[in-house]
Amino acid sequence: MSHPFEEFRKKRQQGNEKLIDTKNLVTKRFISLDKQAYSDGALPVETKELMALTASMVLRCNDCIDYHLETTVKLGFSREQIDEAIGIAMLVGGSIVIPHARHAAESLDFLFEEKANSSN
Amino acid sequence: MSHPFEEFRKKRQQGNEKLIDTKNLVTKRFISLDKQAYSDGALPVETKELMALTASMVLRCNDCIDYHLETTVKLGFSREQIDEAIGIAMLVGGSIVIPHARHAAESLDFLFEEKANSSN
Amino acid sequence: MSHPFEEFRKKRQQGNEKLIDTKNLVTKRFISLDKQAYSDGALPVETKELMALTASMVLRCNDCIDYHLETTVKLGFSREQIDEAIGIAMLVGGSIVIPHARHAAESLDFLFEEKANSSN
Amino acid sequence: MSHPFEEFRKKRQQGNEKLIDTKNLVTKRFISLDKQAYSDGALPVETKELMALTASMVLRCNDCIDYHLETTVKLGFSREQIDEAIGIAMLVGGSIVIPHARHAAESLDFLFEEKANSSN
Amino acid sequence: MSHPFEEFRKKRQQGNEKLIDTKNLVTKRFISLDKQAYSDGALPVETKELMALTASMVLRCNDCIDYHLETTVKLGFSREQIDEAIGIAMLVGGSIVIPHARHAAESLDFLFEEKANSSN
Amino acid sequence: MSHPFEEFRKKRQQGNEKLIDTKNLVTKRFISLDKQAYSDGALPVETKELMALTASMVLRCNDCIDYHLETTVKLGFSREQIDEAIGIAMLVGGSIVIPHARHAAESLDFLFEEKANSSN
Repeated sequence: MSHPFEEFRKKRQQGNEKLIDTKNLVTKRFISLDKQAYSDGALPVETKELMALTASMVLRCNDCIDYHLETTVKLGFSREQIDEAIGIAMLVGGSIVIPHARHAAESLDFLFEEKANSSN
Repeated sequence: MSHPFEEFRKKRQQGNEKLIDTKNLVTKRFISLDKQAYSDGALPVETKELMALTASMVLRCNDCIDYHLETTVKLGFSREQIDEAIGIAMLVGGSIVIPHARHAAESLDFLFEEKANSSN
Repeated sequence: MSHPFEEFRKKRQQGNEKLIDTKNLVTKRFISLDKQAYSDGALPVETKELMALTASMVLRCNDCIDYHLETTVKLGFSREQIDEAIGIAMLVGGSIVIPHARHAAESLDFLFEEKANSSN
Repeated sequence: MSHPFEEFRKKRQQGNEKLIDTKNLVTKRFISLDKQAYSDGALPVETKELMALTASMVLRCNDCIDYHLETTVKLGFSREQIDEAIGIAMLVGGSIVIPHARHAAESLDFLFEEKANSSN
Repeated sequence: MSHPFEEFRKKRQQGNEKLIDTKNLVTKRFISLDKQAYSDGALPVETKELMALTASMVLRCNDCIDYHLETTVKLGFSREQIDEAIGIAMLVGGSIVIPHARHAAESLDFLFEEKANSSN
Repeated sequence: MSHPFEEFRKKRQQGNEKLIDTKNLVTKRFISLDKQAYSDGALPVETKELMALTASMVLRCNDCIDYHLETTVKLGFSREQIDEAIGIAMLVGGSIVIPHARHAAESLDFLFEEKANSSN
């Protein structure tokens, strides 16, 4: 059986294909803008990803959290750094964020193990 | 194995039965008011359902989204029209709504296929 | 002394000028997309405005409410119709929406009086 | 010049009159249900008011906070007890609740001073 | 197969162990503060738990709801009392809370059955 | 007449004094934790402030936005960099964030003018 994070990846991929398949221009342009936004500019992409992770946590969206955790790990942030971002999000968003911090901890275990294995 | 949307329907039905079973008058009256509200008045029920769908999306409640998708499909809205409503919701509610738009796309595939089959 | 709604209009206008003045492409494109979205498509602009009004109420944003009230009055919706939209928003969003419904009632008094005067 | 809390009371009163003036049945019934809900039942009205105060704080609605502060002071809760409720709300809702806790502290100063004066 | 509530308990326990395992001081202190907060003070712990349950419902967090339902049942509240708290939460938070009230009803069935069995 | 931002500063200062004046330990510890959190750790304080600004925008809290704008300007971020953070927040949080972006633009005009004057 695959890990929940791998399930998330597959489901996200399938959903995105369905979503982009729409003829609706507002959705198409919104998603295109969303892709452009996370690139180096006046602020580096690394900072933008941490900002999006924090926003995802205080807005309590697990799929958004998982996506930005995957990106921040890929960009090279350490577990300690990401845990610090989660701490700030918990403080800003309150104890209602705790279940999402639990979810994030589980996803991070998977992502750092995957990274360790792939670099062997 | 049944489709996730059919699971949602069954679970929703069971949950509603449990909920209505309460002796609590506030809950009973609230649910009764909720039923009365979605009927023709100064505005047609179709418009009210689209409004409720948009609200469900920006408040990011998948069960609410699924319920109002089911109703809007039943009322005769086309996929293109519902996709346009989803586009507005995404714009108002932001990229945090995207996972719910993915969910909606999957539910709509099911609902329109079911409709096509039933009209054969 | 001017009416609070006129103050809102002036402040909104000034704020928008400042906002558009940015060199930030994401903001520029987002605001441009926001303008395109409210036009006739598969759904008429009237329906989209009511959807945006409902979303603004359940997300409890007075400036957004005032803007969409202005537009819905301009598009020809009656007080009774807009009040019905507000009723749906209150039901979906709960009693926490009541202060915003009070605000909306005050804005609507102003907008319909203004409309009556201008058509004389 | 009157205290901000007195302004709130006047504005709330005026707004409620406008709101109840609607012919919209959903709004009328919702507001009537809202009045019935805060009375003794399986739980005493005191507990319900503290619950509503907490909900108002985590949903960050100053008008709702002020209303429930007024009621909890009237019901006889001490400053220490209400401050404890505010502490729980801050913990659940996070640092984003702090500005509303500042607002509540100001309202409570007014309400307890008013109570002290009226009982002389 | 175990009941969904038992799955929640197991998953929550595992997640908390992962979470506390962090070296991040903000998270550690936040979670420690969260534990201290729910004890008798100017207000009894019972009232605080009902407040937290209401907050969890209007913020629509099922894991938080389940946790506070478990505690309120353990503290001796009756089904009728907890149902009344749920009614208040639905009124404050709106129909968007209904799916969470359905979830709560299912959890309460489990918790009260478990309690009945354990006291035999 | 003083600028709205100066009014905010004065009101915030007064409110904080009232708030800290409480004997409630949960509030005291929460506010103390909030102060400790924004310091250099695994992530630099600059990044944490941008994260908190983004969170404040998507949660739509003007007082929180103003506070973190003041800090980010003091820490040396350029207007272009802060505008980019605002763009990300708008994208994540949706058009409902626009009124807060207008507010932020006005505050930034004040803060950068103040900085220019003080460095002369």
